[in-house]
Amino acid sequence: MTAQKPLRFVTLLGSLRRNSFHAAIARAIPSLAPEGIKIASAGSIDGLPHYDADLQAEGFPPALLAMAAAIQEADAVIIVTPEYNYSVPGALKNALDWLSRLTPQPLAEKPVAIQTGSPGMIGGARAQYHLRQIMVFLDAHVLNKPEIMIGGIHSKIDPETSEVTDEATAALMAQQLVALARMVRPGD
Amino acid sequence: MTAQKPLRFVTLLGSLRRNSFHAAIARAIPSLAPEGIKIASAGSIDGLPHYDADLQAEGFPPALLAMAAAIQEADAVIIVTPEYNYSVPGALKNALDWLSRLTPQPLAEKPVAIQTGSPGMIGGARAQYHLRQIMVFLDAHVLNKPEIMIGGIHSKIDPETSEVTDEATAALMAQQLVALARMVRPGD
Amino acid sequence: MTAQKPLRFVTLLGSLRRNSFHAAIARAIPSLAPEGIKIASAGSIDGLPHYDADLQAEGFPPALLAMAAAIQEADAVIIVTPEYNYSVPGALKNALDWLSRLTPQPLAEKPVAIQTGSPGMIGGARAQYHLRQIMVFLDAHVLNKPEIMIGGIHSKIDPETSEVTDEATAALMAQQLVALARMVRPGD
Amino acid sequence: MTAQKPLRFVTLLGSLRRNSFHAAIARAIPSLAPEGIKIASAGSIDGLPHYDADLQAEGFPPALLAMAAAIQEADAVIIVTPEYNYSVPGALKNALDWLSRLTPQPLAEKPVAIQTGSPGMIGGARAQYHLRQIMVFLDAHVLNKPEIMIGGIHSKIDPETSEVTDEATAALMAQQLVALARMVRPGD
Repeated sequence: MTAQKPLRFVTLLGSLRRNSFHAAIARAIPSLAPEGIKIASAGSIDGLPHYDADLQAEGFPPALLAMAAAIQEADAVIIVTPEYNYSVPGALKNALDWLSRLTPQPLAEKPVAIQTGSPGMIGGARAQYHLRQIMVFLDAHVLNKPEIMIGGIHSKIDPETSEVTDEATAALMAQQLVALARMVRPGD
Repeated sequence: MTAQKPLRFVTLLGSLRRNSFHAAIARAIPSLAPEGIKIASAGSIDGLPHYDADLQAEGFPPALLAMAAAIQEADAVIIVTPEYNYSVPGALKNALDWLSRLTPQPLAEKPVAIQTGSPGMIGGARAQYHLRQIMVFLDAHVLNKPEIMIGGIHSKIDPETSEVTDEATAALMAQQLVALARMVRPGD
Repeated sequence: MTAQKPLRFVTLLGSLRRNSFHAAIARAIPSLAPEGIKIASAGSIDGLPHYDADLQAEGFPPALLAMAAAIQEADAVIIVTPEYNYSVPGALKNALDWLSRLTPQPLAEKPVAIQTGSPGMIGGARAQYHLRQIMVFLDAHVLNKPEIMIGGIHSKIDPETSEVTDEATAALMAQQLVALARMVRPGD
Repeated sequence: MTAQKPLRFVTLLGSLRRNSFHAAIARAIPSLAPEGIKIASAGSIDGLPHYDADLQAEGFPPALLAMAAAIQEADAVIIVTPEYNYSVPGALKNALDWLSRLTPQPLAEKPVAIQTGSPGMIGGARAQYHLRQIMVFLDAHVLNKPEIMIGGIHSKIDPETSEVTDEATAALMAQQLVALARMVRPGD
């Protein structure tokens, strides 16, 4: 039996606020991942201008190319995002709009998992199904289960230490990482 | 019988490209409106940074306040937008994300109509239902019918002259403006 | 000041189980309604066969015509339904499919409110946005707020007595009824 | 090189009308499939009562068990359905509601393709994304591409002979069957 190359996952974060609970969730992921998975950020969505075909004609932004390369080289992507106004944050959608214009398009056939949260009970569920519809066009392979919708997120993660203090949430996150790894390597 | 004050509608445009077909659609609207309706732009979504609660804490962007005032003073809003990746363009969603943070929130109880198009046959339909879900949170009153989804948009509007060259599309746009006016003034 | 005719609302129930929590919610509504609103059932969805255009050609089912008349005569409709498989129960959708074929179509321009629940935390939210999209086609006027998504429904209503034992839920239901009444009579 | 066992796909049809265009589409599928794929019907959705947990307690309907077995034994499912009122036909959703109650649940991890059509230009697109959301709960693996949304269906299939008379539609259907087969056997 031979050792396998580690899997590489990247996180794509939908919020920009410094003390964001979702940023803390994204930072917590490596500590919850099973052995043999390396997790890094795909880069910030903040550095991209609003998508504009005229801008595209002048050349793709370097920050986009770096993000695309990170996604391209990764075995899977974990999107961690709040829900804004019952949908995907505009800045995150904007990053996806830019990524969609590249050839090769880095999300094509890429395994993707989604993690959302909210202060209330719904946990960002509405944003997830919008993201899933977007991912159909991008031809990503979005993991069905477990879905992660963290209701009451304010009491489940410590934004200072990035510790997931709610055990059920931490367990679900770990379980999703295992499921995502199995999607990448079905034989495992 | 007394003369009524003219109605004021504003357009909110979802694309940034200079020669955008949707920009041409938005420019064509005044020529298709019934008498007694003044139509202006709510301002460009391009001037807004990506929504970030830390930025908000420093003060709302002036371009946002101008857009909010334009919407606030208007009797109705017409959103004209392409569909990107089966959903709302990120830059447009970003404008809505900013608008949602204001008090008063300018779209609350505001009559809204939607016009989308695409080169293919679907005409942006997928973006419309995402927009409608967003508008539930914003408490806007979105016109049900007629829905305007302009398939084959490239052959139906001249982006140079902003003339809607397809008669059926022009007629439908005029009909939607009448329906929107009736939503504002049910007694008319 | 003259007394107004009472408003008449009808409930449309999406579940068939005898001891259904949603049936109990529907039965609880009259006790939570403000004075001056009469509330009745629009009839059971159970009596309708699966929609089939060949059956329709033989004549609309009597149970459908009774339901349509109840809706037609009502000032507003309250849909109370569980979520099945992240969407609307098939039997409820089937009733809407039949109703959509009638002329006049009874839901056209009809004020509608939605109440969903679930044992878990999401409270049927996913079914609500599917229902809202369906209602666009039917040209119903769906109330935006307050949305009622009853998470943990098993501990909030007593199916024997139909008493809403959770005060926050009862208050929200009462508030939605007031909002629906105001949608019917904006001047009130 | 060894011969492989033929793949077995089943169709699940969402309309009941005898001369349904979608029934004709479903009947046309075998003639468009690549060699080595056997295609059969999963059985009619018409024989199932409205889902009711009280009925379930008395025992699952025999027609359901037959349908579940057909799906269970199949390598993939092709859902062929019209769109009713911007969503999935109630009778089809009802079949899915019943299937969801079985253990094992036959659609779990099952490859699924969707084909919709409409007389107008949208081709049933709205129903597809509702179906996809339902399939997330059912943990089915829904093929992303090619999507099949047959606009102007009345002029593209002959309901008498079940011949797909529109070449582009026939080619797309054949292409989807190949993609579905590849989803089942990625190595091929």
